[in-house]
Amino acid sequence: MTLSGKLTGNIVIIEKRAIEELYNTSFYGRPRGDMLEVSLTESAYLMYIGKITVEFEGKELDFKQFFLKASHALKNFELLYIVYKDLRERGYYIQPAVTGFRVYPRGGHPGKTPAEFFVFVTSERSPLLLSELKTHLDTVENLKKRLVLAIVDEESDLTYYEVKRIVPSGSWKLKQDKQLSTASLLEDRVMVWDDETSAVLHKEGFFGKPMDQGHLQLSLVESCYLLNRGVLEIQRNRETLNFDEFSGIACNIESDFMIKYTVYEKLRDSGLVPKTGFKFGTHFRVYGDFESLASMSHSDYLVHAVEQEHVFSLQQLSRAVRLANSVRKEMIYGDGTGFFVIGRVRL
Amino acid sequence: MTLSGKLTGNIVIIEKRAIEELYNTSFYGRPRGDMLEVSLTESAYLMYIGKITVEFEGKELDFKQFFLKASHALKNFELLYIVYKDLRERGYYIQPAVTGFRVYPRGGHPGKTPAEFFVFVTSERSPLLLSELKTHLDTVENLKKRLVLAIVDEESDLTYYEVKRIVPSGSWKLKQDKQLSTASLLEDRVMVWDDETSAVLHKEGFFGKPMDQGHLQLSLVESCYLLNRGVLEIQRNRETLNFDEFSGIACNIESDFMIKYTVYEKLRDSGLVPKTGFKFGTHFRVYGDFESLASMSHSDYLVHAVEQEHVFSLQQLSRAVRLANSVRKEMIYGDGTGFFVIGRVRL
Repeated sequence: MTLSGKLTGNIVIIEKRAIEELYNTSFYGRPRGDMLEVSLTESAYLMYIGKITVEFEGKELDFKQFFLKASHALKNFELLYIVYKDLRERGYYIQPAVTGFRVYPRGGHPGKTPAEFFVFVTSERSPLLLSELKTHLDTVENLKKRLVLAIVDEESDLTYYEVKRIVPSGSWKLKQDKQLSTASLLEDRVMVWDDETSAVLHKEGFFGKPMDQGHLQLSLVESCYLLNRGVLEIQRNRETLNFDEFSGIACNIESDFMIKYTVYEKLRDSGLVPKTGFKFGTHFRVYGDFESLASMSHSDYLVHAVEQEHVFSLQQLSRAVRLANSVRKEMIYGDGTGFFVIGRVRL
Repeated sequence: MTLSGKLTGNIVIIEKRAIEELYNTSFYGRPRGDMLEVSLTESAYLMYIGKITVEFEGKELDFKQFFLKASHALKNFELLYIVYKDLRERGYYIQPAVTGFRVYPRGGHPGKTPAEFFVFVTSERSPLLLSELKTHLDTVENLKKRLVLAIVDEESDLTYYEVKRIVPSGSWKLKQDKQLSTASLLEDRVMVWDDETSAVLHKEGFFGKPMDQGHLQLSLVESCYLLNRGVLEIQRNRETLNFDEFSGIACNIESDFMIKYTVYEKLRDSGLVPKTGFKFGTHFRVYGDFESLASMSHSDYLVHAVEQEHVFSLQQLSRAVRLANSVRKEMIYGDGTGFFVIGRVRL
């Protein structure tokens, strides 16, 4: 028999019987005294599946009336409903949380097991602050749960992404510890003129790209790293540049040079070999195991450097993750303080 | 025997013999009177392959000295050199042009055949104005040639993209010509409440996404199109919205709504079926042949709507094209006046 609830503010209060029939069996709502309190999202779903009717000021509401009311009362109600329905229909027990849902592992439920995922619901259109994402990650990781973003696109299709911190590391080491030669900063790249240095840098560290026999072109981040490690001297118009001078020039060429460099240095210092990711639309493609040039295979990660104040466009994030996955790589964002891997997850 | 040239301003002038040995056989330079004029890019390549030596103010320059001088004298010299060398080594005859090169078809050469491609050389870092791209296209298409962008990334790797105008068209037609029902604009999407309308719109036009039995969620562009065609009435808070009111609200939700809508409408009116391209990081995925929902296969194009003042970041362009190609679709940009397909091309 259909249970009857009353819409009161932003919740629906259902008669006592609901505790047994809805909560104890299927974990809808939360018991309060001898009544069951049910959120707007849960109520819409319970109406849809015919478990409850809802009245407001003495009049029964139909689904459309309830939906319009809820949509008015609760920000993102439609999104929350879409995600709630999807997760329920996949057989998960879920409970409302501040900006989304707590989702229990398969076979688990409230009172038996802790929640496994924290699902943060957002629209494709909402910009996502990196700082906000990090706050969510902190909260969720403190509770030893996993963070999932549920992104609803304009046609109400859903994509789930899992976000994790990661500490990437590899086996590469810089062997040179003294200055090898003097290179020239040209317009927006650096040229090593010396045969031997060109060969050593390319072979042992996969630095640069051989332009001709004996000439190696280095990117700005590569040159800056080698300058900073004392392996290269770099001149422009016969003047030797120190780290600050070089990076100052580089910042004029690329406005995001410093954050790119910071992330590049962290990757190299963690034993990884980053090369440009231009063809993938990211800052770097990164090789995890670098033994020698000859034994190299495909890169493992795509890494994009972002400022700590970065605001993700979810459309761009979606494109980056999709592209990375289509070439079997992980999509990683680095902000100089840490790295985050973002990947699609099938719940 | 090596030929000897003199660097004068931004060109190298080579003795008479060069006309026979360099121009007549391999189409380097341009004869002027009884001397051969050779550009800086061509000269660097000819020095590299040991065909010429170059002197300046009575002193012979080595490759490094010449390269540094040329790099000072000519904007983008390194980029031009990289592209020139690559095309020459692939066996093409090429001639300098204002912002790049004219490239002759395989088997063709200056004096025998017209050039086939106009190659526009640019750095990954340079922003590319849509208006500039259109000017190039106009010029190149007037000359009945093909436009190729040669993009040099920070590590001097090269990618070639061909840009073409395209007039996409398909077989879909809007069958409804009268108002079917009244839908509600909720937060940022529209809900059709009526069973029959939901079914007809979804089946015959692949509009929206069925949320529940009998309820169809439409995106803003879809709703606006159906409103404009008189198929749907749309209300918010019981007030009926006209086209201007609806699109005004939509613009507040999505700042790029109008250009998206303009492109959406052009696609629908050309018989194509656009759906959201969110999962691909673009505005639309587009189906070319739409007979019925049941017979639909994969979409054919990804279409991104851009303002006429749009400035492409080449990194983003690269990512979009790569992603489109990885799912075997064509990447198309539309600015309301026309459509451009951009794809990688192997020369």
